[in-house]
Amino acid sequence: MTGMKLDEKAKGVFVITVTPFKDDGSLDDASTDRVIDFYLEKGATGLTVLGVMGEAPKLTAAESQQYVKRVLARVKGRIPTIVGVSAPGFAAIGELSKSVMDMGAAGVMAGPATTVKTDDQAYAYYEMVAETLGPGIPFCVQDHPLAYGGVQLPVPVMKKIFDNIPTAVMLKHEDWPGPGLNKVAAIRAGLKRRISILSGNGGGLFLPEELSRGCDGAMTGFGYPEMMVDVWKAHSAGNVERAHDLFDAYLPLARYEQQTALGLAVRKYMLMKRGAIATMAIRKPGPKLSPADIADIDRLIARQEKRLKELG
Amino acid sequence: MTGMKLDEKAKGVFVITVTPFKDDGSLDDASTDRVIDFYLEKGATGLTVLGVMGEAPKLTAAESQQYVKRVLARVKGRIPTIVGVSAPGFAAIGELSKSVMDMGAAGVMAGPATTVKTDDQAYAYYEMVAETLGPGIPFCVQDHPLAYGGVQLPVPVMKKIFDNIPTAVMLKHEDWPGPGLNKVAAIRAGLKRRISILSGNGGGLFLPEELSRGCDGAMTGFGYPEMMVDVWKAHSAGNVERAHDLFDAYLPLARYEQQTALGLAVRKYMLMKRGAIATMAIRKPGPKLSPADIADIDRLIARQEKRLKELG
Amino acid sequence: MTGMKLDEKAKGVFVITVTPFKDDGSLDDASTDRVIDFYLEKGATGLTVLGVMGEAPKLTAAESQQYVKRVLARVKGRIPTIVGVSAPGFAAIGELSKSVMDMGAAGVMAGPATTVKTDDQAYAYYEMVAETLGPGIPFCVQDHPLAYGGVQLPVPVMKKIFDNIPTAVMLKHEDWPGPGLNKVAAIRAGLKRRISILSGNGGGLFLPEELSRGCDGAMTGFGYPEMMVDVWKAHSAGNVERAHDLFDAYLPLARYEQQTALGLAVRKYMLMKRGAIATMAIRKPGPKLSPADIADIDRLIARQEKRLKELG
Amino acid sequence: MTGMKLDEKAKGVFVITVTPFKDDGSLDDASTDRVIDFYLEKGATGLTVLGVMGEAPKLTAAESQQYVKRVLARVKGRIPTIVGVSAPGFAAIGELSKSVMDMGAAGVMAGPATTVKTDDQAYAYYEMVAETLGPGIPFCVQDHPLAYGGVQLPVPVMKKIFDNIPTAVMLKHEDWPGPGLNKVAAIRAGLKRRISILSGNGGGLFLPEELSRGCDGAMTGFGYPEMMVDVWKAHSAGNVERAHDLFDAYLPLARYEQQTALGLAVRKYMLMKRGAIATMAIRKPGPKLSPADIADIDRLIARQEKRLKELG
Repeated sequence: MTGMKLDEKAKGVFVITVTPFKDDGSLDDASTDRVIDFYLEKGATGLTVLGVMGEAPKLTAAESQQYVKRVLARVKGRIPTIVGVSAPGFAAIGELSKSVMDMGAAGVMAGPATTVKTDDQAYAYYEMVAETLGPGIPFCVQDHPLAYGGVQLPVPVMKKIFDNIPTAVMLKHEDWPGPGLNKVAAIRAGLKRRISILSGNGGGLFLPEELSRGCDGAMTGFGYPEMMVDVWKAHSAGNVERAHDLFDAYLPLARYEQQTALGLAVRKYMLMKRGAIATMAIRKPGPKLSPADIADIDRLIARQEKRLKELG
Repeated sequence: MTGMKLDEKAKGVFVITVTPFKDDGSLDDASTDRVIDFYLEKGATGLTVLGVMGEAPKLTAAESQQYVKRVLARVKGRIPTIVGVSAPGFAAIGELSKSVMDMGAAGVMAGPATTVKTDDQAYAYYEMVAETLGPGIPFCVQDHPLAYGGVQLPVPVMKKIFDNIPTAVMLKHEDWPGPGLNKVAAIRAGLKRRISILSGNGGGLFLPEELSRGCDGAMTGFGYPEMMVDVWKAHSAGNVERAHDLFDAYLPLARYEQQTALGLAVRKYMLMKRGAIATMAIRKPGPKLSPADIADIDRLIARQEKRLKELG
Repeated sequence: MTGMKLDEKAKGVFVITVTPFKDDGSLDDASTDRVIDFYLEKGATGLTVLGVMGEAPKLTAAESQQYVKRVLARVKGRIPTIVGVSAPGFAAIGELSKSVMDMGAAGVMAGPATTVKTDDQAYAYYEMVAETLGPGIPFCVQDHPLAYGGVQLPVPVMKKIFDNIPTAVMLKHEDWPGPGLNKVAAIRAGLKRRISILSGNGGGLFLPEELSRGCDGAMTGFGYPEMMVDVWKAHSAGNVERAHDLFDAYLPLARYEQQTALGLAVRKYMLMKRGAIATMAIRKPGPKLSPADIADIDRLIARQEKRLKELG
Repeated sequence: MTGMKLDEKAKGVFVITVTPFKDDGSLDDASTDRVIDFYLEKGATGLTVLGVMGEAPKLTAAESQQYVKRVLARVKGRIPTIVGVSAPGFAAIGELSKSVMDMGAAGVMAGPATTVKTDDQAYAYYEMVAETLGPGIPFCVQDHPLAYGGVQLPVPVMKKIFDNIPTAVMLKHEDWPGPGLNKVAAIRAGLKRRISILSGNGGGLFLPEELSRGCDGAMTGFGYPEMMVDVWKAHSAGNVERAHDLFDAYLPLARYEQQTALGLAVRKYMLMKRGAIATMAIRKPGPKLSPADIADIDRLIARQEKRLKELG
């Protein structure tokens, strides 16, 4: 079964999936099925698995394959699935990519190696990614210095990548806290062709503005993915103030998830509370919520529900 | 004229002041007077000058002294003023500190040298700060890895600093995006004495929660300092939901200011718009707002005003 | 076949092996056999495979196992073999470790995750390494900030690790350019038990002094491993000046290998020239020698041979 | 008194001066005079003051000026003196530069701000340096990532700087441990005009090879500056093997100085022993030699003297 291929027309909301574990640390297949259903119900137009927040580096090579297989079997090609393949070496990138494409993934996503230091090295890195993947595997460039050792992918590097590498069809923009909004606009303006740009900036903390600057949607997590879907739909329909109203209602909670050390635990707690996964287990090393954290989240959820009701 | 001395009972809102420049890059004394008046009117209980967002490293030694003198002359001892003295060497720290204390500053603030790498080095650094300042100058420890080369000041280091150095009376907590809220609680619980902890986390993006975890107030900037004052007052009065209501109304704009590359320009634009400074000039190297940025901010201000009116 | 287990009495020269590739990038099994023989002939008392200079991150999980299997089959238990297992997650560390121990490895070696930032996190990391490996797998702590994202393992952390974790039996000391020699002495003095400390500092650039400060030998590469063996033997025999004489003769070439960007290419060129491997192929991304580099090395080899002859 | 101006024809050995302190931490003017005489006697063709190893960041603005004044008064224009002016802001750079040029400095030297992250930012930084200094002050670009927060100045940035900024006349090449020798050659080959390139790589640890690749000499410290002078003279006279012989004789000691944490203490100890400065005092925070360190150095000095005698 090979699914649709990722291309530069992708838009909407690609949800970064969590990887559900049982309390003993093993992969929780049942919760995987359930959370995928949950994302589909909430309106995801795509999925991204094995991302930073998917605890990818904590899986063995075999587990990564097992997890992707399960997800793809559940999605059944209804929406495209991108697989994160960032790894310290090209052999591992190539191996995982070929395998998941055979299983039906739509494309892959890779951030730069943490050893990249200069513009030329950054471009050379993506040339090697493209060479490793070959002409048949489209990929998404992940611009996320905070997660990749501070490695920068500035506008001239983006221009070289997207103007010269046809299989680079998508950008996940997450240069934050950093250049932000003007970078999206500068990239959009500077390229010879139209690519798909999805915003992950601050975990979606700038979504309405990113859409105004030329993003085609969002690629990030958050325990309430319908926020991203609804904001994107309102914005696409030209109802910008409504997009902001919805966004603002979710913002206090979305902001709370943006604590680097705690974010994934916050997200899994919300998903558990909503019935999308069985437990909030995180593989070590990982954060644990304190009772005070949980009280904070519960308060924010209650306030969010009240505010959404007011908005109608 | 020597003013009040900073001590561990400090609370409320210490506003990080901007340093106003004329369009030609010289210090704008008239705007300095005006913005100090503005901060006082909005309810600041203290000021912090020459912070990271005060463009301190862009001033010459002489200009730093000139600016502090002007501020202190305007404040006239009504509220305590802390002066940022972070510098690569202790000689410069000592020189500036002695000078500003003679002018009437209440205390000084210092982040760690970017060469600090281990817990022991971090503690040794603050021992040397204390030795340099001598017993008569109280100081605030600035925990802000993003601004100080990633240098960490973890809880055991904080414990050693505050348990052993009597002149370390205050912590500016800004370990963000990072450990966040639980770090405040852990520090508070771990110390042998009560110190003043002011939150700067994400530029105040977690203010209501920080107050619940034991912060005595805020030390940060933001073009609407009354937000911090009003949130702190409501929270102190036990009206936590009201504190959140107010906070949430300002959050979309406060969040917008938290774009590292652009934040100071956003802040100066708001202050200019509110009449607190004459121009939004920033010394090089510094960001400039694009027309799209300005449109974003204007929209967010309009929405904020509407929301505040709804809240009453 | 299970071989001897690594313990705290290990000493001498553990050679960091190169991983030989064919020009097409595939593993070169014949060269692997030959280079292992070469290391044994030159007097290695142990081997360390899949280290930083062994291009470990460029191998797939399957290739790593294939390579280690080949090495162990060639060594036939004559000397202990340590396998580098550093990986971003514990699942991968555990999987590789168990597998190579079953094949007959003597122990494993792990550097800290690049996400470690504080002393407590560093210690916690090694606690989790030990828990992952279980009581039956002895391991070597690799202190090499330059290769592990600048992560520090200062003396108090070392003390906690070695005093509390019985399976941590060896330290590879390579905190360079950094604290260097006094760190070895401080660790040695501070521990409750005697562990094995092997020097890798600057690729062996401080070997005679490290031995004087308490190192039990060396763990590093270099195209002339007999240098390390001969220096260690002379030093152990109390002939310190002779140890320096030998060291100094090799130093110009050893220094040349310490160019981060080029070092591995220099090493593989020397091993190829000496007949220990078939080609100097390095997997991408990797350095290539320029003709000027080769001329430099050839000159240094000629000078080294002359100097060794003079010394007798 | 205005001295000669630095230009792109500069060559030979620019010694990075130490800044002598008394044991109480104050500037030691008498030792300053003596060490300047010492550098002149040993054949320095230029001096660089207030460099990283000159403890520049530990001086107040007033002390920096006092020290430079003393040096220039002693040099009396016999050789050009470059002043390190790296600072976090342009105002301080401009102030110090104008002042020292008025005193008779030949030019200034600046490394990049630690906030620089991309190629474009690096070039923009040097554009602002040039604008700050104005057309009358020639400057040296310092490429030394280890001392400047890891900031990279890759070949394309160098090309832009030297091709577009006429007052950038010199490069201090110290990208180490890093690209090293091939970077010098690539810069030399890529520029539209000839500039002066002085090697500081590894504190001079690659001097003979750097000269072969196109360096015009050295700019670094070392307690035996005559090594650099003699190596440069022999190499310039076409006697490359003799240059290597001399270099190799000093290498064990030069290498010992390249321990980041200890290097300056090693250098000051050697200068004190040679009578060039009164004490080895270093301002805090700074390293202290242990008895074992001193024994190491004394041994290396004795061995060096013996080897130099053998060489004749």
